[in-house]
Amino acid sequence: MAGSKLWGGRFVGATDPVMEKFNASIAYDQRMWDEDIRGSKAYVMALQKAGLVTQEEMEQIHGGLDKVFVEWSSGKFHIKPGDEDVHTANERRLKELIGEAAGKLHTGRSRNDQVVTDMRLWLRNGIDTLKGNAIELINTMVERAAVEIEILFPGYTHMQRAQPIRWSHWILSHAVALSRDVEQVEEIRRRVNVLPLGSGAIAGNPFNIDRELLRKELDFDGISINSMDATGQRDFVAEFLFWGSMCLTHLSKMAEDLILYSTKEFSFISLSDAYSTGSSLMPQKKNADSLELIRSKAGRVFGREDKEAMFDVYDTVHAVLQVATGVISTLKVNQKHMEAALSPDMLATDLAYYLVRKGVPFREAHSCSGKAVYQAESKNVPLNQLTVKDLHSASPLFDSDVSSVWDYTSSVEQYSAPGGTARSSVTAQIEHMRAWLKAHRE
Amino acid sequence: MAGSKLWGGRFVGATDPVMEKFNASIAYDQRMWDEDIRGSKAYVMALQKAGLVTQEEMEQIHGGLDKVFVEWSSGKFHIKPGDEDVHTANERRLKELIGEAAGKLHTGRSRNDQVVTDMRLWLRNGIDTLKGNAIELINTMVERAAVEIEILFPGYTHMQRAQPIRWSHWILSHAVALSRDVEQVEEIRRRVNVLPLGSGAIAGNPFNIDRELLRKELDFDGISINSMDATGQRDFVAEFLFWGSMCLTHLSKMAEDLILYSTKEFSFISLSDAYSTGSSLMPQKKNADSLELIRSKAGRVFGREDKEAMFDVYDTVHAVLQVATGVISTLKVNQKHMEAALSPDMLATDLAYYLVRKGVPFREAHSCSGKAVYQAESKNVPLNQLTVKDLHSASPLFDSDVSSVWDYTSSVEQYSAPGGTARSSVTAQIEHMRAWLKAHRE
Amino acid sequence: MAGSKLWGGRFVGATDPVMEKFNASIAYDQRMWDEDIRGSKAYVMALQKAGLVTQEEMEQIHGGLDKVFVEWSSGKFHIKPGDEDVHTANERRLKELIGEAAGKLHTGRSRNDQVVTDMRLWLRNGIDTLKGNAIELINTMVERAAVEIEILFPGYTHMQRAQPIRWSHWILSHAVALSRDVEQVEEIRRRVNVLPLGSGAIAGNPFNIDRELLRKELDFDGISINSMDATGQRDFVAEFLFWGSMCLTHLSKMAEDLILYSTKEFSFISLSDAYSTGSSLMPQKKNADSLELIRSKAGRVFGREDKEAMFDVYDTVHAVLQVATGVISTLKVNQKHMEAALSPDMLATDLAYYLVRKGVPFREAHSCSGKAVYQAESKNVPLNQLTVKDLHSASPLFDSDVSSVWDYTSSVEQYSAPGGTARSSVTAQIEHMRAWLKAHRE
Amino acid sequence: MAGSKLWGGRFVGATDPVMEKFNASIAYDQRMWDEDIRGSKAYVMALQKAGLVTQEEMEQIHGGLDKVFVEWSSGKFHIKPGDEDVHTANERRLKELIGEAAGKLHTGRSRNDQVVTDMRLWLRNGIDTLKGNAIELINTMVERAAVEIEILFPGYTHMQRAQPIRWSHWILSHAVALSRDVEQVEEIRRRVNVLPLGSGAIAGNPFNIDRELLRKELDFDGISINSMDATGQRDFVAEFLFWGSMCLTHLSKMAEDLILYSTKEFSFISLSDAYSTGSSLMPQKKNADSLELIRSKAGRVFGREDKEAMFDVYDTVHAVLQVATGVISTLKVNQKHMEAALSPDMLATDLAYYLVRKGVPFREAHSCSGKAVYQAESKNVPLNQLTVKDLHSASPLFDSDVSSVWDYTSSVEQYSAPGGTARSSVTAQIEHMRAWLKAHRE
Repeated sequence: MAGSKLWGGRFVGATDPVMEKFNASIAYDQRMWDEDIRGSKAYVMALQKAGLVTQEEMEQIHGGLDKVFVEWSSGKFHIKPGDEDVHTANERRLKELIGEAAGKLHTGRSRNDQVVTDMRLWLRNGIDTLKGNAIELINTMVERAAVEIEILFPGYTHMQRAQPIRWSHWILSHAVALSRDVEQVEEIRRRVNVLPLGSGAIAGNPFNIDRELLRKELDFDGISINSMDATGQRDFVAEFLFWGSMCLTHLSKMAEDLILYSTKEFSFISLSDAYSTGSSLMPQKKNADSLELIRSKAGRVFGREDKEAMFDVYDTVHAVLQVATGVISTLKVNQKHMEAALSPDMLATDLAYYLVRKGVPFREAHSCSGKAVYQAESKNVPLNQLTVKDLHSASPLFDSDVSSVWDYTSSVEQYSAPGGTARSSVTAQIEHMRAWLKAHRE
Repeated sequence: MAGSKLWGGRFVGATDPVMEKFNASIAYDQRMWDEDIRGSKAYVMALQKAGLVTQEEMEQIHGGLDKVFVEWSSGKFHIKPGDEDVHTANERRLKELIGEAAGKLHTGRSRNDQVVTDMRLWLRNGIDTLKGNAIELINTMVERAAVEIEILFPGYTHMQRAQPIRWSHWILSHAVALSRDVEQVEEIRRRVNVLPLGSGAIAGNPFNIDRELLRKELDFDGISINSMDATGQRDFVAEFLFWGSMCLTHLSKMAEDLILYSTKEFSFISLSDAYSTGSSLMPQKKNADSLELIRSKAGRVFGREDKEAMFDVYDTVHAVLQVATGVISTLKVNQKHMEAALSPDMLATDLAYYLVRKGVPFREAHSCSGKAVYQAESKNVPLNQLTVKDLHSASPLFDSDVSSVWDYTSSVEQYSAPGGTARSSVTAQIEHMRAWLKAHRE
Repeated sequence: MAGSKLWGGRFVGATDPVMEKFNASIAYDQRMWDEDIRGSKAYVMALQKAGLVTQEEMEQIHGGLDKVFVEWSSGKFHIKPGDEDVHTANERRLKELIGEAAGKLHTGRSRNDQVVTDMRLWLRNGIDTLKGNAIELINTMVERAAVEIEILFPGYTHMQRAQPIRWSHWILSHAVALSRDVEQVEEIRRRVNVLPLGSGAIAGNPFNIDRELLRKELDFDGISINSMDATGQRDFVAEFLFWGSMCLTHLSKMAEDLILYSTKEFSFISLSDAYSTGSSLMPQKKNADSLELIRSKAGRVFGREDKEAMFDVYDTVHAVLQVATGVISTLKVNQKHMEAALSPDMLATDLAYYLVRKGVPFREAHSCSGKAVYQAESKNVPLNQLTVKDLHSASPLFDSDVSSVWDYTSSVEQYSAPGGTARSSVTAQIEHMRAWLKAHRE
Repeated sequence: MAGSKLWGGRFVGATDPVMEKFNASIAYDQRMWDEDIRGSKAYVMALQKAGLVTQEEMEQIHGGLDKVFVEWSSGKFHIKPGDEDVHTANERRLKELIGEAAGKLHTGRSRNDQVVTDMRLWLRNGIDTLKGNAIELINTMVERAAVEIEILFPGYTHMQRAQPIRWSHWILSHAVALSRDVEQVEEIRRRVNVLPLGSGAIAGNPFNIDRELLRKELDFDGISINSMDATGQRDFVAEFLFWGSMCLTHLSKMAEDLILYSTKEFSFISLSDAYSTGSSLMPQKKNADSLELIRSKAGRVFGREDKEAMFDVYDTVHAVLQVATGVISTLKVNQKHMEAALSPDMLATDLAYYLVRKGVPFREAHSCSGKAVYQAESKNVPLNQLTVKDLHSASPLFDSDVSSVWDYTSSVEQYSAPGGTARSSVTAQIEHMRAWLKAHRE
């Protein structure tokens, strides 16, 4: 019967069960059971201070809520058919446990007041966990970069070999992106951590409730400014969803590179068996499934009901960060294949710089080097096999000292400006990231 | 141990449990248990014909699959921890029931082959159900339009009163949109109903399996052309997701209008209690929650993993169509308020047409009528209270017969061209839709 | 002054210029100038038949519109500041050319009536062009597949080598997807090709206009059923946008494969210079920019104002189809590298089938073959270098005739079931596609 | 000829013109002409310091770039067919003006280096403008709220009348949301304002260029950490696009309310003619087009190429903020209609609080008040017309002092807790916002 609903009283028809099911959120919002109890305990303290419940009633309610807490935490809380959300369920149970006094708990508080307070408490905690996961991944990456700093391999643009770089330089490029994610989620946490409770349905709270008491009790940083805005907006969820998309996009890009590096054709890395799967049909297959999962999550769109999406993004980012940490810490690098993939044409830029250093404007030097590349292709020889005489047809300034160009380590060591791939520059990046990690670990 | 996985054999490490959980789909794909069994029963028949299983083995497998069917349909099938999807689960259970012969079932069939076949079977059935739901809703709308054809109310554009129309005309405008949805999903069903089974992993099926036998057995209309395309594409799911969005958008627009019509300020309709909810704080509130739910679903984005999204869209459209049917069949129309909302300024177009009929070019007539509206506003009287003398300042062609303009029914009856709001035209639309319903019910 | 706007008359304030600019659509909707003129010419014929304009006025208007046509087609039409859209512009110009009679053209017609008629006319034509582009691309693919049917290369799943297939099989998998796009756009064309004109603003047309005359004159297949639906919905645009996304996604997937195949590491194909670009910094770079552009367009989201999006999708698909045709018809295949990439481990499934043919259940055979793969990896030899004795530790059923497994052509020829990669099956696909092309070319 | 392209040298074929057009971005990226010149001027200073250009060459290049600047700012810069982007165009023009020395400008700099530097410079400036627009709008809203603080009207939830609130309370709820947008874009600006220049293509800059000099010269706050990340990521654009969506959503919600308030049925506000438009067909229509435009922009999806999307979001937000400011500052409030819309059933919560103050638990009080509402509806009288005797059937605690409940101003004044709608609380919000405005104006 509709009369048993909390907003009962004046309804005479029964509710369409399809709609009832459609409307219920307890399947997912029960994850906030703890936050709901904490919010209610604080609110009843404010009601007591405002003289709306007695000290005795407050204690009764607190005692009842503690029992509800124990039921949830021991897995014994029993959801009943009429419990459309966790807030209804907890109040229903409280009433069963302590009787009429439970009816005072909602005085001046709207459902929206309660929902948004619980969401902010839950998300604040969720952010702290995800930040920890990200820090752990970044740390794994930075330390791996430190150990493998001597390994060179091709840097790619447009999936074509571009310039020789350090493997650590590649790792750090992804670690730096993740460090921005951490900084951004710290900012979001500040906007999440604002108390809405005490805003009522729309007009505010009519009992001059002490919102500062609520803020302290629930450990919020500030208090919402306008009651309509406080109960009506979910901007903090939208921000978190966007953040999740950005973070997953960063991990997805990293996974995309690693999938390529793990193909037979590249053979730069191999994944641990713990992060691979086979095929039900083809016995030889070892698929980089962990990486494919990570890659695919960036495409995941989070546009559902706000609470549901919040949980979904949390779970996805939580899992992806952990799997990524596992993958990065266990993958094996095939240094031999990496270095074999460096080819003389990747030094064509260096060949141009050789001329630049002899005073040729870069545009002209680029053109001369391009001609040399074309010549090598036409002759079907590697670029470094062109003779000085051959090179003269591209530019008369080429001389025997051009042989110094064909050294990958020397090439890499040129890039010593901040942010570059020279040993000194990569080391500076590692030091920077270690300091950053220390600062963001608390 | 990883060795117990179906692709086992060469794996030596264990799989990261976070990744395993992340990768599993059984939580949702178990909905295809029936389709999975049907697909396997057909496949083993084809294997028998190809000489890869004996008659006896086929019977053994069929018998085992029948037992698995009974377990699922009686709610007794027990999912075990290693069952990553419904296909693995069913084969695992089959092996427990009949032993080694179960291992022959997957000969030449890939997981993808199986997944996509099951999805097509499931969706074909789902489309039939949704089509039935839509037909029922359209029927309710058309019959309501037939009964309430005499009720006039304001037609709105940009939420401003535009022209008097029939209430039935409004209903039919939404019914017509839904009828296009039915036609479109019929087309999609044709593209869904194509057999992929027999495509293997990528290269095709190597045992010259009889795909025509499979097609007949599973009641598909045709056979996929290329094995790589067959196993790799999910276009039919994308089409279905888009269709769901369109259909929900149509229902959302209808709900948006009805929400407005149910406000205190409009008071055109009132919802049955079965489709309203109250407020936990404000005792007088009666919210059009059913309509808000319907409206909100159009914003829902379906961009998740293909299978999960397919189920999600199905459930959403299934519920929304049923709730919409309930709402439309039970709402009460407040004819008095509807007709009271018709105001003389809504006949300003008719005032212009009065001049057009006297030979004034429409652009000029529009301008004259606009001047009359402005005059009425300045004088703060309704448009039909302007005297002929007043009207002369807008155009000398206004005469005493202008009084005939101020009749809402006459106004509506002008629109007798096909598609218009005149009684005859609306009746023709009702007849058209009844014939359409008859044609699309089977 | 606001009074010069077509809806003028009663407005006294001026319009905010920021808003005016914001509201204007002529920058893009001028592309429908021809459709707008054709729609107006037909409409005036219907007005004449209904007695609202005289024969002489009709001829005057037709003459004026013909002059407007000439101005547009010769690039001499001059857009003036107040022309907010192409409809306003054309009517403004007509009035300049023929005077007051121009004011009769809009009798009983709303702007929306006109906009949606023009859009349907324009899109009908656009669809015909795109269909032609797609047919040309498919034809190129099918004929290339026919010529290069003997080339084998690795089929990949999860970017890992899976099974040997024919290069033509890969081409056809993409051609088949595009052929579905053509079929779908033909269906959409049918829903586009419905006459809305004669629906007025919302209530219909009050002058009993002959909509059948309009339909014939403008070559539509049918007439819209309900005037509110006809002017209010843009479902046909939404369908076209979705179609564009699907088609671009198909081309994007093809481009993604080709990008990979054109890397140094794969070296399967090389692009014509006409479809590559270089780097402003690195002289040796030859980037597959055409493919990257094609790939990137699938990510493009079309969620803007309906008209603007319609043009945008059209332009994008139009360019992408042409570039794809150019790329496919000019790329060079490196058969030597393709065949060198086939490796014995890709025949592990065949090794399992060897046992299946000796009566071993596939699951067990898969496991035995997996053990052989593991053994080869441990010994660091190719799979086909294992001796029969080695293989015995995986299964005692391996015998000297196992050597027949190690033949790529024989492997491919097994897949002769419809849709497979055997020569006969690929040839059948080519024949099927040629017949399909013939049928869809007119 | 392809040889005239900047990367020329080794290309022999011509480029497909469809692809060339498809690839060009100058149509929109020419908006960064100023930033491109500034970036180049700074870069040549760094080259001079590194000894790669002489003092004289630097002066020559600076002089040439100044001429290019003058051409752009006077509208005389002539884009030529081969200019695929603004960077190419400027360098091409520089070369025409000063000859070969221009070829030195690109030494060690990649196109990506240049593009991303220009985008950051441009967006930094764009953000400052938008922030100013938002501040102006917020200021308008706050001052209007201050002036109209005494006006009461219905607060709505689910579009149903909920509780009486102050009109100013509604205004401030939207101003507060916009103030968060300003705070967020300030944070984004910090992440935008980081120098990427000096990162080369991927490996870094090989000439030990002084990046600190570049940072100072271009007034950035910091320097990018890793060269691959610096040139490859566009996170700052993604953040800006998301920010734009959030801000437009806030304005859209406000517009949605105002559209409703401007309907004939609500009649709470009327728009200035400067922000309304008429209908080409219906002379009486006055549409809230400005509000509809604002509302619609939230649905706009920005998923296009990064640069294009950046400009698009900027233009949209720029226009919307200005139009919103115009609308808010010129709309007229109809206080009489607003107050007439307050109805006694909106005080049902107060009726429950009457009982709460007499010690009844809220849940019970809510139920009693609900019964009273039902009674009034059944009797078809306003809630405040029930006699004390009538009320007794809902609760015996109702007494003659219940009459004090039926006062809208008293009701509103209860909500004096922070964030509420009482005069004191709204005044505090106004003061808070004035202080905030002062702080954020610089």
